[in-house]
Amino acid sequence: MYQVHERMQISRQIGEIKNKLNMEVNDEKVEQDIRNSILKLSKEIGMDTRFCGRLLNILLMESVRLQQNQQIGELHRQTHLGIFMKAKQLEAVGKKIIHMEIGEPDYPPPRTVKTALARAYDNRQYHYTETKGIPRLRQAIAVKVGNSITEEQVMVTLGGRFAVFSAFASLLKAGDEVISIEPAWPAYKECADFIGAKTNILKTTLEEKWDPDIKNLADMINSSTKMIAINYPNNPTGRILDDRTVEQIVSLAQDNDLYILSDEVYSDYAFNHFKSILGYNYDKSIMISSFSKGHAMTGFRVGYGVANKEIIGKMAKVQATALTCVPEPMQYCALAALEVNNSSIQNKKRMKKRLDLVSNRLRNMSLPFVEPDGAMYVYPKLKKGVGNDIAVVERLLDLGVALAPGSGFGESYREFIRISACQPTYLLEKGLDVLELAIS
Amino acid sequence: MYQVHERMQISRQIGEIKNKLNMEVNDEKVEQDIRNSILKLSKEIGMDTRFCGRLLNILLMESVRLQQNQQIGELHRQTHLGIFMKAKQLEAVGKKIIHMEIGEPDYPPPRTVKTALARAYDNRQYHYTETKGIPRLRQAIAVKVGNSITEEQVMVTLGGRFAVFSAFASLLKAGDEVISIEPAWPAYKECADFIGAKTNILKTTLEEKWDPDIKNLADMINSSTKMIAINYPNNPTGRILDDRTVEQIVSLAQDNDLYILSDEVYSDYAFNHFKSILGYNYDKSIMISSFSKGHAMTGFRVGYGVANKEIIGKMAKVQATALTCVPEPMQYCALAALEVNNSSIQNKKRMKKRLDLVSNRLRNMSLPFVEPDGAMYVYPKLKKGVGNDIAVVERLLDLGVALAPGSGFGESYREFIRISACQPTYLLEKGLDVLELAIS
Repeated sequence: MYQVHERMQISRQIGEIKNKLNMEVNDEKVEQDIRNSILKLSKEIGMDTRFCGRLLNILLMESVRLQQNQQIGELHRQTHLGIFMKAKQLEAVGKKIIHMEIGEPDYPPPRTVKTALARAYDNRQYHYTETKGIPRLRQAIAVKVGNSITEEQVMVTLGGRFAVFSAFASLLKAGDEVISIEPAWPAYKECADFIGAKTNILKTTLEEKWDPDIKNLADMINSSTKMIAINYPNNPTGRILDDRTVEQIVSLAQDNDLYILSDEVYSDYAFNHFKSILGYNYDKSIMISSFSKGHAMTGFRVGYGVANKEIIGKMAKVQATALTCVPEPMQYCALAALEVNNSSIQNKKRMKKRLDLVSNRLRNMSLPFVEPDGAMYVYPKLKKGVGNDIAVVERLLDLGVALAPGSGFGESYREFIRISACQPTYLLEKGLDVLELAIS
Repeated sequence: MYQVHERMQISRQIGEIKNKLNMEVNDEKVEQDIRNSILKLSKEIGMDTRFCGRLLNILLMESVRLQQNQQIGELHRQTHLGIFMKAKQLEAVGKKIIHMEIGEPDYPPPRTVKTALARAYDNRQYHYTETKGIPRLRQAIAVKVGNSITEEQVMVTLGGRFAVFSAFASLLKAGDEVISIEPAWPAYKECADFIGAKTNILKTTLEEKWDPDIKNLADMINSSTKMIAINYPNNPTGRILDDRTVEQIVSLAQDNDLYILSDEVYSDYAFNHFKSILGYNYDKSIMISSFSKGHAMTGFRVGYGVANKEIIGKMAKVQATALTCVPEPMQYCALAALEVNNSSIQNKKRMKKRLDLVSNRLRNMSLPFVEPDGAMYVYPKLKKGVGNDIAVVERLLDLGVALAPGSGFGESYREFIRISACQPTYLLEKGLDVLELAIS
């Protein structure tokens, strides 16, 4: 107890010094050194190294928290959702906004969904269901994802987000570490923060076409690392990794006994070759997808996780604890969406056209970006001198165009913005006109 | 680190000894002594006592976990949900089951809900909403609950369960303690376990009409205690506390700066005087309710939490992290249910009649119970010699009647069963005939 106390006191003092010198609170190198010596010690005295690693991380995070308290104010991380809320407020007082910030398709769900909604009451489809979802929907999802997946390997979740949440919450403990490849959807870090797990960030760059450096990835893995989270087609860059790179990630995971969480919610919008993590036959992988994007069903909140039976069982326990089950009428809507063969194919064609439009316009503006292989976004770099992402996004919002700041997907992307193509082409053109005038 | 290691080794040895002696792993008295001396020490050296208390609980829980690993097999806690799943499996192979185990009304939601479902597609009510829920629904809920509650104090949640989950997850940390009054819905303990908080149980007895002993409650509070969870009308006993007793609980909470989580999902089924926690003007209270029971809308998964703006903000952050928002079509269904003035009043009359029927039959069987003041259940004590709750429930399931074992609501209630009145009277009669034959 005295030792813990001393650590905390030293933390506060270090916080004060770092604050004066304007240094970042985290220091990966020092942490790694401490970790190595602690783990060596715990091995020597025959203690459970995993428990020691976690205890160490809990102490380190408490120490970071204390140091941050010294820093005046809080670094505010503005995300696409924050801008969406601001835009909604402006609309409420009568302002017209073009929504190019949010990843929500403007076109409707398949017509079969309308019928499913209309029939749910008379069919009495409004009861508690199995936590994992109704068997017919799980069977239909198993067929859709292929790769010899069976119904027992599928869980229907409250949106793709709860699939991520339940995977993190059931597979990681406070003090464990997860590697996230940035730029990334903020949900991974939010879920890790929620359970007290630590997110280690592997940065990728526009210059390297958003490809992760596998050597760096290997160096980041330590005995507390439990999971790698990947997301391809990527939000926000639109990048799809080639199979060789994914193989290398799988091989690293295998060697170090790590989970791979593969968020594939944009797989219906893959314009180039894309192979699901399920195609790599890695037992500790969790594939996550959703009806939100491909079937334009965001507000129905139906997603799913696919993994081995044991992992699905753990994720189901979290869903049972937090919310019992996904609303039954929504599950029947998802089932109805799967009955239409070509709905997501039409959506994909439409999205490709729009992204081509956005790409062409950005090329004309001479903004650097990597042409998206998939998903619903373009992630260009701003020119020097126009201000950082937040400044640009706020200026555009005043002009009636909502965009997502690049730093919402990782703190080091303050020169980027994310443009969502979830609007009809005439609105996209209009929004891009405003952008061009404002930042060229 | 050496000290932690020693603790863990001693834990294992103690586990082995306790196992040989058939003792319980927990020992409240010893824990309390350790806690007091640690907290005294942490005060002396000027350390944050809350952090020390939590760290202590994390170590104690790890120690309990290690000791339990020594005990062969795991104490299986059979709940009403487990029996429900078993019953469903039996039905799948053709067996007829009378469902008197699950708290799910058999009558339909209001007809207005059918219209809301049918219109949702054309009204384009299928998008992301504010995390706290659509303003119109929050306003309507604020009006329903009264007590000068405003829209900002209301959050729409994924069922009452997620309201409980988000309150626990946002207000408690690992190592904090929550007091639960048993018998109780297992969700409170499940949510506490999920976040690594400790549940301290205040037992109540049939003999004392399920009234909590306020003196005992006061004695249970220590510096790690952060919340008292109450649930009236109670599941499973049907009891409603008198205002004086609730006042005493509020006063204890006030003196010790504790949250009160008041689960009032059965308030639409209060047959005697019931005053919501909102009527006590206690700033740290969280009232939880749902459309599941009063409006017979279990499968729509719409609940809500009511608290001060700051607490609602914290709960909303958990909902945003875990699932973004409640499905929009379901929120419009809940709104439609509130438009019907007398739907829940009719349901209440119907439920009262059924509970009277069950009570009369149990009296004829000479089973002791307290007549329910509200909710949807009767919780009688079994006669000696018929076997424990699990044995009786399994025997009845073989005979085609599903009941909930009493111990699902607390380990010390192995002589009780819970009878749910969520079936038409002719089926209740039939089920009770079988029960009478089997255990009289």
